[in-house]
Amino acid sequence: MRYFIEFSYKGTAYNGWQKQKNSLGIQEILEDAFGKVLRQPVEITGSSRTDAGVHAEQQFAHFDTELPIVAPDLLVHSINGMIPRDIAVKSIRAVNKELNSRFAATHRRYEYRIIKNKNPFLINEAYLLRGDLDVVSMNAAAGFLLGLHDFESFSKIHTEVNHFRCTVSTAEWTILNDKLIFKIQANRFLRGMVRAIVGTLLEVGRGKRTVEGFKEVLQARDRKAAGPQAPAEGLFLVEVGYPAAIFNESVQA
Amino acid sequence: MRYFIEFSYKGTAYNGWQKQKNSLGIQEILEDAFGKVLRQPVEITGSSRTDAGVHAEQQFAHFDTELPIVAPDLLVHSINGMIPRDIAVKSIRAVNKELNSRFAATHRRYEYRIIKNKNPFLINEAYLLRGDLDVVSMNAAAGFLLGLHDFESFSKIHTEVNHFRCTVSTAEWTILNDKLIFKIQANRFLRGMVRAIVGTLLEVGRGKRTVEGFKEVLQARDRKAAGPQAPAEGLFLVEVGYPAAIFNESVQA
Repeated sequence: MRYFIEFSYKGTAYNGWQKQKNSLGIQEILEDAFGKVLRQPVEITGSSRTDAGVHAEQQFAHFDTELPIVAPDLLVHSINGMIPRDIAVKSIRAVNKELNSRFAATHRRYEYRIIKNKNPFLINEAYLLRGDLDVVSMNAAAGFLLGLHDFESFSKIHTEVNHFRCTVSTAEWTILNDKLIFKIQANRFLRGMVRAIVGTLLEVGRGKRTVEGFKEVLQARDRKAAGPQAPAEGLFLVEVGYPAAIFNESVQA
Repeated sequence: MRYFIEFSYKGTAYNGWQKQKNSLGIQEILEDAFGKVLRQPVEITGSSRTDAGVHAEQQFAHFDTELPIVAPDLLVHSINGMIPRDIAVKSIRAVNKELNSRFAATHRRYEYRIIKNKNPFLINEAYLLRGDLDVVSMNAAAGFLLGLHDFESFSKIHTEVNHFRCTVSTAEWTILNDKLIFKIQANRFLRGMVRAIVGTLLEVGRGKRTVEGFKEVLQARDRKAAGPQAPAEGLFLVEVGYPAAIFNESVQA
């Protein structure tokens, strides 16, 4: 049987989603906890690989087990009691064996959150950035991201992908009280893509780069053309979308 | 000159607002920082004494200094750079010498926040409480708090107050997604009052105490009649109110 796990985490204490040799990834924490409860090794595959310090309000992963999970809510409760407070499992649901949490996802949505004033309740959960930004120009530049483009300029180099094409369906800055939030949705994201885009858009906002100059960065297909990446603490994976049917189908045990 | 400081804090790391002999209070952190910047001892008096682990989204305090503070915004910035990330100063404003941040306040508003599910972004910022609660009965019971009453039943004993009378103008539970929030506003609060009220209302919510039984607790004027206090992590001081005029008057230097 294949199961989808829905969960969230504050990424500050972790070296990203992925299991690594010398540092703690969220994947490892979940594999250890599920392995202990199910009393067998469990391999968990995430839908999206967030980097060190990046958060997820909604993330999905999948695993296979031959053990029947008769009370998924109880399993959620057990796992939550075993893992740290900065990771929370929301649900565990059986799906058809062919569904892969990474490849079945139709879109991901990220938010990059900037605050202008120190906030004791958002420690490591937003990028504190003083100074005025030209949000109108930042939104004009962000408009060039919409649609199907090659995003090599905003991708980490030495990344194992076949191509750099992504279809972006939302890319806009909104102001909410003293917060500035960038929402970006796409069918897929490349490694470091959102933080490189935000870092470059912030240069537009500070007047260091023109709106037209931002378009040229996208067209260059060269990471060196873009600006520095924005800090991890402001980035949240907020939604991973799947066809609604995959959770509604009755699954054969 | 007298100045009002407006600030907020996440209270988890502190033994409350008040300076104490063997533990760290928020008052002490602010007095140290202001003392260093102004290069003279500064005594800071808070508007409300929050207990260990209790948070403040809005808190006020006052201090006196003969030094002219010509650029209060720069002072805010300097102080924020010196104090920890879980305390933030929002403004420093000159007021008339007679105004005391504690006695000039017309009301305080607190919120007690309960979550039903583990949340990585609200660690120590809400009380995680599973199980169903009868919110209708909790609100019926809370209604008895409205108006002028003697709140000795909900006050810590051995407290230095002349009387236990408070006028409560708001006392209600609201449901917001998977959060349950109790809002209470009064002209003054006694030590431990909100947490004792919430703890007793939660007994009503669990069916351990009737709505009428809650009214009897209030009438008893005896701390032993009330339930246990709710955990500190869910309590937030969210507003301290002053007559608007006190910040608008031109102050003579």
